[in-house]
Amino acid sequence: MSSPHQANWIAADWGTTHLRVWSMSQSNEILDHRQSENGMGKLVSSQFEVALLDLVEDCLQPGRQTPVVICGMAGARQGWIEAPYLTTPCPPPALSEATVVPGTDPRLDVRILPGVRQMTPADVMRGEETQIAGFLSLEPEFEGRLCLPGTHTKWVELKKGTIRSFSTYMTGELFNLLSKQSVLRHGIAQAELDQNAFQTAIRDINSAPATLTEELFRIRAEGLLSGLSPAAAYSRLSGLLIGAELAAVKRGAAPNEQIVILGSDRIAAAYELGLTTLGLPSKCLPAEDITLRGLTLAYSSLKDLP
Amino acid sequence: MSSPHQANWIAADWGTTHLRVWSMSQSNEILDHRQSENGMGKLVSSQFEVALLDLVEDCLQPGRQTPVVICGMAGARQGWIEAPYLTTPCPPPALSEATVVPGTDPRLDVRILPGVRQMTPADVMRGEETQIAGFLSLEPEFEGRLCLPGTHTKWVELKKGTIRSFSTYMTGELFNLLSKQSVLRHGIAQAELDQNAFQTAIRDINSAPATLTEELFRIRAEGLLSGLSPAAAYSRLSGLLIGAELAAVKRGAAPNEQIVILGSDRIAAAYELGLTTLGLPSKCLPAEDITLRGLTLAYSSLKDLP
Repeated sequence: MSSPHQANWIAADWGTTHLRVWSMSQSNEILDHRQSENGMGKLVSSQFEVALLDLVEDCLQPGRQTPVVICGMAGARQGWIEAPYLTTPCPPPALSEATVVPGTDPRLDVRILPGVRQMTPADVMRGEETQIAGFLSLEPEFEGRLCLPGTHTKWVELKKGTIRSFSTYMTGELFNLLSKQSVLRHGIAQAELDQNAFQTAIRDINSAPATLTEELFRIRAEGLLSGLSPAAAYSRLSGLLIGAELAAVKRGAAPNEQIVILGSDRIAAAYELGLTTLGLPSKCLPAEDITLRGLTLAYSSLKDLP
Repeated sequence: MSSPHQANWIAADWGTTHLRVWSMSQSNEILDHRQSENGMGKLVSSQFEVALLDLVEDCLQPGRQTPVVICGMAGARQGWIEAPYLTTPCPPPALSEATVVPGTDPRLDVRILPGVRQMTPADVMRGEETQIAGFLSLEPEFEGRLCLPGTHTKWVELKKGTIRSFSTYMTGELFNLLSKQSVLRHGIAQAELDQNAFQTAIRDINSAPATLTEELFRIRAEGLLSGLSPAAAYSRLSGLLIGAELAAVKRGAAPNEQIVILGSDRIAAAYELGLTTLGLPSKCLPAEDITLRGLTLAYSSLKDLP
């Protein structure tokens, strides 16, 4: 940063692969935004403070404790310190439920928000609960299903500001593994979505979900035998995996349930197209800074603490 | 080898990751068996002859062309030379259908057996057709479904010595990617099969095949929340993936169709247990040297050539 400033407080989204921080003013304006690749996956517990100071030290006031509000994998058992889960049904966590990290640099007051768990069937989130808080601040009356696309896509049932249940799908991670590291990589190239190939795959897998692992190899065979292009193969793989997920969602959805996809990028658009293909209406809501919005809400709840 | 011998002919199983060769006597006894990691995946076309000579040069007679009969990925487009596919329905290939590699060392007469393709739905095999030939030499009257477990498991419909149709499932490759490279690796340890966890997973996924990518993440969540052991997680992952495959097989199988699994290792036993769990009787047939048996049959058909 060219001109150091002094943060009133600091917001941090600390995931497995990245750390993103925002320096915030007293009126919750963004003074600065930085990120590093010091994700939780690269660090042992004793390294988190250094990784944080690397990004924020020049924003700290000497002689004052600057509040740092963190969400995400930094609160996992293998993270900085374990921040115990809330259990569904529950609203997104407030800062009063955060875990205070003991023994930090005296210029820091670090609190890690809890994740949320569901006992039956077992499921967990860390970070998405803060996105959900941000979403609920925009749509407080929302009742329905919220989709958070990602490496591990979450589908969250919301009602009256409460997370009632949720499910995680390994769709994004499977797509990355299969397109980059499996035999399919020989016939796949990233490209604009081929809508026809994508929608055909969505319908195929929804009508016969048991055929998924067979349909995956068929992408390779069609590349060899029928000239399936690498671009169409990319869209077909995406359609098969998103389609398998949506087939499960469709089977669990209530009639006329509202569906919102948090995001406005190409992945969110693919989810929307997939849902449309299966006759499920949905809308995309831009998710830019939705995590920061959730962190800001949590920080504001801290100011209400006695 | 301590004492070099002279091969009457040489059999070779040349896959993506390994090259296995057998030196054979005139009466088709094994004189020697060797292997290397010079699989097709590591070689460009010009390197295949050197990789072969590395293993067999000391078995060749000067002044004589030694026949070499090869099956597998050496015949792929990216292999030594492309050996065009036969198309289903067809019996396993005879040596008269093999592709002669031109311009080799004068001591070698190298022939690569074709693979088999199916046009609709698209599917391909290279190497398994030779295992099927070996199987049919043991069970010439077999009518039913043959399972060849592997990285890409094949299910082959056989009748009157003919490959009528087949399907490939990416089960083994998915298992390796998920257990070693995905988020699931943190909670999985290779272990003896936990039959209860395996069978429960088989039943779960057969009754709701659309839930596969959701059930995969649940393995991680159950490890975090309910103490699912790394050994039980291993068996559950295996059960979910084999179960997804068997759910598709069950939906396509004719009533009372005979099922034989080629193999006698732990993977073959897992397939047999999975089939039993779904009420499909099957038997395992030891597959040791079944590829060599198929290659020997092919070589014998060469001797009948004019």
